[in-house]
Amino acid sequence: MFVVMKPNHSATDLKQVLKTLAASGFEARISATDDKIILNIEAADAKPLSGMFVQKISALSGVQDVVLAERKAVEKEIQVGNVIFGAGRFAVIAGPCAVESEAQTLRIAHAVKAAGAHVLRGGAFKPRTSPHSFQGLGPDGLKILDLARQETGLPIVTEVLDVRSVEVVSQFADLIQIGARNMQNYTLLKEVARQKKPVLLKRGMSATIDEWLMAADYILSGGNENVILCERGIRHFDKHTRFLLDLSAVPVVRSMSALPVIVDPSHASGRRDLIAPLARASLAAGASAVMIDVHDRPHEALCDGPQALLPAEFALLMESLRAMAPALNCVMDAENELRPFSALQGFASTPVGYQA
Amino acid sequence: MFVVMKPNHSATDLKQVLKTLAASGFEARISATDDKIILNIEAADAKPLSGMFVQKISALSGVQDVVLAERKAVEKEIQVGNVIFGAGRFAVIAGPCAVESEAQTLRIAHAVKAAGAHVLRGGAFKPRTSPHSFQGLGPDGLKILDLARQETGLPIVTEVLDVRSVEVVSQFADLIQIGARNMQNYTLLKEVARQKKPVLLKRGMSATIDEWLMAADYILSGGNENVILCERGIRHFDKHTRFLLDLSAVPVVRSMSALPVIVDPSHASGRRDLIAPLARASLAAGASAVMIDVHDRPHEALCDGPQALLPAEFALLMESLRAMAPALNCVMDAENELRPFSALQGFASTPVGYQA
Amino acid sequence: MFVVMKPNHSATDLKQVLKTLAASGFEARISATDDKIILNIEAADAKPLSGMFVQKISALSGVQDVVLAERKAVEKEIQVGNVIFGAGRFAVIAGPCAVESEAQTLRIAHAVKAAGAHVLRGGAFKPRTSPHSFQGLGPDGLKILDLARQETGLPIVTEVLDVRSVEVVSQFADLIQIGARNMQNYTLLKEVARQKKPVLLKRGMSATIDEWLMAADYILSGGNENVILCERGIRHFDKHTRFLLDLSAVPVVRSMSALPVIVDPSHASGRRDLIAPLARASLAAGASAVMIDVHDRPHEALCDGPQALLPAEFALLMESLRAMAPALNCVMDAENELRPFSALQGFASTPVGYQA
Amino acid sequence: MFVVMKPNHSATDLKQVLKTLAASGFEARISATDDKIILNIEAADAKPLSGMFVQKISALSGVQDVVLAERKAVEKEIQVGNVIFGAGRFAVIAGPCAVESEAQTLRIAHAVKAAGAHVLRGGAFKPRTSPHSFQGLGPDGLKILDLARQETGLPIVTEVLDVRSVEVVSQFADLIQIGARNMQNYTLLKEVARQKKPVLLKRGMSATIDEWLMAADYILSGGNENVILCERGIRHFDKHTRFLLDLSAVPVVRSMSALPVIVDPSHASGRRDLIAPLARASLAAGASAVMIDVHDRPHEALCDGPQALLPAEFALLMESLRAMAPALNCVMDAENELRPFSALQGFASTPVGYQA
Repeated sequence: MFVVMKPNHSATDLKQVLKTLAASGFEARISATDDKIILNIEAADAKPLSGMFVQKISALSGVQDVVLAERKAVEKEIQVGNVIFGAGRFAVIAGPCAVESEAQTLRIAHAVKAAGAHVLRGGAFKPRTSPHSFQGLGPDGLKILDLARQETGLPIVTEVLDVRSVEVVSQFADLIQIGARNMQNYTLLKEVARQKKPVLLKRGMSATIDEWLMAADYILSGGNENVILCERGIRHFDKHTRFLLDLSAVPVVRSMSALPVIVDPSHASGRRDLIAPLARASLAAGASAVMIDVHDRPHEALCDGPQALLPAEFALLMESLRAMAPALNCVMDAENELRPFSALQGFASTPVGYQA
Repeated sequence: MFVVMKPNHSATDLKQVLKTLAASGFEARISATDDKIILNIEAADAKPLSGMFVQKISALSGVQDVVLAERKAVEKEIQVGNVIFGAGRFAVIAGPCAVESEAQTLRIAHAVKAAGAHVLRGGAFKPRTSPHSFQGLGPDGLKILDLARQETGLPIVTEVLDVRSVEVVSQFADLIQIGARNMQNYTLLKEVARQKKPVLLKRGMSATIDEWLMAADYILSGGNENVILCERGIRHFDKHTRFLLDLSAVPVVRSMSALPVIVDPSHASGRRDLIAPLARASLAAGASAVMIDVHDRPHEALCDGPQALLPAEFALLMESLRAMAPALNCVMDAENELRPFSALQGFASTPVGYQA
Repeated sequence: MFVVMKPNHSATDLKQVLKTLAASGFEARISATDDKIILNIEAADAKPLSGMFVQKISALSGVQDVVLAERKAVEKEIQVGNVIFGAGRFAVIAGPCAVESEAQTLRIAHAVKAAGAHVLRGGAFKPRTSPHSFQGLGPDGLKILDLARQETGLPIVTEVLDVRSVEVVSQFADLIQIGARNMQNYTLLKEVARQKKPVLLKRGMSATIDEWLMAADYILSGGNENVILCERGIRHFDKHTRFLLDLSAVPVVRSMSALPVIVDPSHASGRRDLIAPLARASLAAGASAVMIDVHDRPHEALCDGPQALLPAEFALLMESLRAMAPALNCVMDAENELRPFSALQGFASTPVGYQA
Repeated sequence: MFVVMKPNHSATDLKQVLKTLAASGFEARISATDDKIILNIEAADAKPLSGMFVQKISALSGVQDVVLAERKAVEKEIQVGNVIFGAGRFAVIAGPCAVESEAQTLRIAHAVKAAGAHVLRGGAFKPRTSPHSFQGLGPDGLKILDLARQETGLPIVTEVLDVRSVEVVSQFADLIQIGARNMQNYTLLKEVARQKKPVLLKRGMSATIDEWLMAADYILSGGNENVILCERGIRHFDKHTRFLLDLSAVPVVRSMSALPVIVDPSHASGRRDLIAPLARASLAAGASAVMIDVHDRPHEALCDGPQALLPAEFALLMESLRAMAPALNCVMDAENELRPFSALQGFASTPVGYQA
């Protein structure tokens, strides 16, 4: 948790904040940017802070902001259907970018299940840059996803675009996705905070890491503690990829927050040939999962065909990820017992300023 | 209007598209990017294309997208209350970032009116990066703005955040603002397209110019032809300003679209001392208006105080803009007769590839 | 002048630095970034600090860096041939991107002189992204520029690429240009610091403003006090322009340094149709000059033809700049008496944190 | 190899180019950007093209540029001392950022040798943003590196800044580094092309991948075929890391060029705690090596201490890289026999547009 003080707070304000924190057993490290004093509060344990305590600190004189995503060495465990994200496990989400038809969705769902995927992805409501592009099947798409779940046993992640659809999407989905374009759609964040399903929060395409964590705080402070963060590439100046995958964000977020962080190399790169090396790099960088577009007829895909792996390519990728996981002390199969997170990955928790 | 062909379209598809366009009197220039064939359609006159014609082209085999914002030499004229935007005029929108109280809003409204502002700005619903920051007065703020309009005669621009508030905001506002964080909130764009008031569409903080124009097309193709575009700064790597004001976007948009484009130097720079030079540069670059934060007690402001001009500074800025306008052949006062747009500014319409 | 303290300096170090400054009549404001303590030293007058004093401060225990570009309200005056840059004047540099032949250079030199340009530009040594592109005429190009100077009376600016050519270029040029790709070529900066001609230092295409000013300090601290800074666009994610012109950099630099800052809209935008609006915006933003590519046969140009104005377009631009200058209280003609810099532009010197 | 045609080339020009290529056994794929026609020439084998053939094509009418970095499935093998880079092997370069003293350099050299590093890094000439920072020991630093090589047997990589030092640096170094700030210092590139040692070319901090490959072509076409590329982070908008490590660049470069590409996570991130996860991610993304700053007393380092691993941390990182390498079918120890590059990594050579 970070407490940001107002530019014009008094020394008395600051002392009162520190006393209130100490009374609840918190220690604070202090730092300053050009224009702000920031208190970095070390939570004594891994549990999220109570909303009431946050309200109490927020209400103190001289306090401008309270930022919730707390720094922790151990990732939070979040359950999506029967799959666990975080806590030293590695999961794979796969499926078509968009639900196009029942036949297409079922074919791909069975293929990714056979290759060992843990969760099925598929968009029923699609945000499209142009109003004249395919906008998704809507509620009919949700029913197709439900059928795919029944047939394969895979939990479902799908995106919600509209506050008025949150209820219906949360009935069908096991994990509700907030897309990059809606990361700062605060109305929508407040609405998903009010329902019970876990939320996958994609990073905005030019969001700073702090803004991303503060967007997560809209959901956490709204009462929903199960947020998974997803890096999906940011704006850049080069033309060889659609966006620039920011893999440093994985260990940076892990040094600041207990929330699991996953990576979507398909939407980041927009290129089939880059997905496998970037998925492997995501695992090596400490991500809790990857999310991969798979399509068996990419040339016919209504959305983002050029970035989908073929089922056979996906199966090969899964094999290589399983081969790598033990060297990273990471549990990849859902049936494995829960083990503490990797000693090797533990480098990420070495304090930045540490000196021998 | 641009027609983007699917990557795998056939020559027959292309010929059918060209025939359909020609039958309605349109000529097309053809160009190619790495992966697409694009037809740039020159509209015969300045009127927006009919939605039916766009639907017809969109439905043709091989067509991927139709992009509406057409290239025109003359800006569209858009009326906001009794003020005209575009068509060679220059307007100034000013007021507090947020409506904080009736007294604060009325004081500032009278001050900016006295200095010659044309439209009053003020946020009743505020999108804030942190859930713990001041979120605006909501409907009470709208009533305060209404009172300020009655007292000063200035039309009102205010932001809408939620599809469920579009109706109430459009009752009160003369110009409805879509903020940068919602530029790709397509649900909200479709909803504001259905009401009658003109819309101010801010550029997303990492939106390309094409994405911005396609967001405008969500509103245009939804039936609302009155869209004003607002450049407000994009992400960058330097720490001296909050965002990087992209003034090139002004002549670039003017070369591609008839929609008026305005500039917000306050939110772009985040620094009081940069507002005046950047507002003058906006006028010189061909903007139709600037939007300026003004606050008489910036140290007490609940939102963005460091970027607000004091009323006296704002009055000096207005004087300097009025001094510059004639040299740019630009009409700054609302009561002036409508004149054709500047011959000097006309450079902007010289085709890029022109050779003597 | 900024003094940056080492991360591990002691309180005694800091006190000694402050005492040494005070003994010479300087006051310091203190600020902190994430990892550094920075002293912002207000020079008592507009003269550059002596190199000896800078050496003395640099040598104190606990001092990491001394950054020279000092904050001043009044721009330094720098003489290039018979033309004065800075101090409230506005100059125009124009000419071909590259010297291609004697005939081409003389034709264009006479054209820009006739339109009122103050300085002639032309590259004899060209830095090219590909080794297979035209690399310039070299020393023969310098002789052609010399001839053009004799015929028109215009001083010459031309680029130097190699430490081994600094001597010959400084014999011919009135103003020596360091290109964007060499902004951090410290070997070259040190070498140009040792000769007597003024230096035009272009901003690197991804340089922060602080890095740019520190590159200038390589020249200033090397003994050459006559540095003019040139903004020429930075990297960005949009495809409509080659680089993104950062006009905010003009008032930002003016708030930090006495060095004149000018703008090159030709290389920034890469588009003929954007040059005129961006040149006018540069003047309005407070630039001391613009540098414009002009070519009478752009379709035959060996380098950057699409970004050159035709002579007739350039003449129209000059007219519009002359029309604007008085409203900005700016002297555009070389024969005008020297006047103190504009009261309007004076906004730029309002301290950022100022509150009524 | 790419051949870029001039904007105004004729159909006859194009036909002559294609005929000349075909006569030497080359096939061309054609593509177009907004303003250019580009021929992508598939070399029949992995050998670099002869300079004479490139000159011949460059001289044809209508040809603007010839770009050499050819697309190949198999990496080129480059020998640095007794160590091989590329061709399915993974090497580790480690050592201090700067050579500070004989004792410091020898201590660290022995430590990284003991942990299994293949090459020793150390800067004798340092490019520093500020003229007042430590600039390196110069020629004395080279002698210290020579001594460290004699004691440990490790080959040496060190940076050259000045064309006048190329000769002395190439006498001492096994691998000559061109730093990011000099990537487009074409004078220096031409000079290192003329000596015999392999060259490590760091990517400029805002260079596109095409610009980076064209900078490599200055060296290749100058006669030195042994170029290793090094990704070291690009400019970005977030404050949690110094630069943004672009790991996508690794598979992108591998899809375009046979030159080995390596990664420097130390200078990219600037944070000790991020180095290990990013080094592992570099291996997983297909890099041929990583370059790691190591310092045993980082709090005393004259340069970049906060980004150096301690020797014990470095030894742990080496262990984890060795554990991962087999799963990536990658040879990490120098004494291993040469094996063809990984089948798994082979995904990178799947053509982007491939469809089942």
